[in-house]
Amino acid sequence: MEYYSSHISKLIEELGRLPGIGPKSAQRLAFHIVSLPKDQAVVLADAIRDARENIRYCSVCGTLTDAETCPICADPARNHRQIMVVENSRDLAAYEKTQKYEGVYHVLQGAISPMLGIGPDDIRLKELMQRLQGDVDEVIIATNSSLEGETTAMYISRLIKPTGILVTRIASGVPVGGDLEYIDEVTLLRALDGRTEL
Amino acid sequence: MEYYSSHISKLIEELGRLPGIGPKSAQRLAFHIVSLPKDQAVVLADAIRDARENIRYCSVCGTLTDAETCPICADPARNHRQIMVVENSRDLAAYEKTQKYEGVYHVLQGAISPMLGIGPDDIRLKELMQRLQGDVDEVIIATNSSLEGETTAMYISRLIKPTGILVTRIASGVPVGGDLEYIDEVTLLRALDGRTEL
Repeated sequence: MEYYSSHISKLIEELGRLPGIGPKSAQRLAFHIVSLPKDQAVVLADAIRDARENIRYCSVCGTLTDAETCPICADPARNHRQIMVVENSRDLAAYEKTQKYEGVYHVLQGAISPMLGIGPDDIRLKELMQRLQGDVDEVIIATNSSLEGETTAMYISRLIKPTGILVTRIASGVPVGGDLEYIDEVTLLRALDGRTEL
Repeated sequence: MEYYSSHISKLIEELGRLPGIGPKSAQRLAFHIVSLPKDQAVVLADAIRDARENIRYCSVCGTLTDAETCPICADPARNHRQIMVVENSRDLAAYEKTQKYEGVYHVLQGAISPMLGIGPDDIRLKELMQRLQGDVDEVIIATNSSLEGETTAMYISRLIKPTGILVTRIASGVPVGGDLEYIDEVTLLRALDGRTEL
């Protein structure tokens, strides 16, 4: 793309590598960025660099954080005897946004996927089992409701059962506000199986 | 968003300021960026900073470039007697991608818009009139086919007419591959008005 400045071409190329950003979006973003006040563009560039350079994984739960221990694991007010197992930090954030869960988390950093060649040793299961040697009342498995998530949930529950610790799985069913007409059969059957008395 | 690292929160915030990037996309991009190899994240940050810091406008046509004169204006092989007037550098790029246009450009950096309070003095019209004092055969008006673009086209044509220089407007009509069924009435009427003999 000789008709742009080489700096803009480079920026378009780099933005285009991001997930979900196609060539047209990359171009639009690049032109937006060069038209920003200089300090705003620098703030964005620094945010990218800082985030990448200062990020680390919590030594307890494995979520992305910038301290040795994340704010949740370091909080004495949380219930450390209840551990919710999630696939990644975004899922943790999703549950934190509900502001209702008071236990702690364990971030697997992936899910078992024979398709992608990801086995039990490739996710943070060993670390989870280690944590269970402390005082734990319940492990809530909140992996995604996908094939990989379900496989992982099944695997973990089998692993934990022998220890006698309560293992639960978050409910699967019709999402709140969901219209039955547009919901797939598997979800509808799950909702039926998981029906509760009123 | 206390549940993320402050660096990630900052990055999500900054990415969320970009056009077309909502909170969910910003979060997805931020997590992608922190999971990139460190050098790739730095390359992206540097691309943003470099593009913003080194960008300038071509002293002749006004497009975004990093030299005093852009590669197109500096190219002796182009026809400098034919000037295509476009609204912005993206539109210039769109025509350059066709690889068929051999003239040069004039980038207005906007369009006349009474709604937004952008008048003739706010776009690069004075610079265009100055260029016309040299040897110019034709001015092709390629502003967008929007209300603002049409207003600007009309205004420019009236301004140039007295000089005797040929002023043309790119054709408006049904886009190639367009299905008549889905095209608006205004475009259909334009296409009819602009019909050519076969």
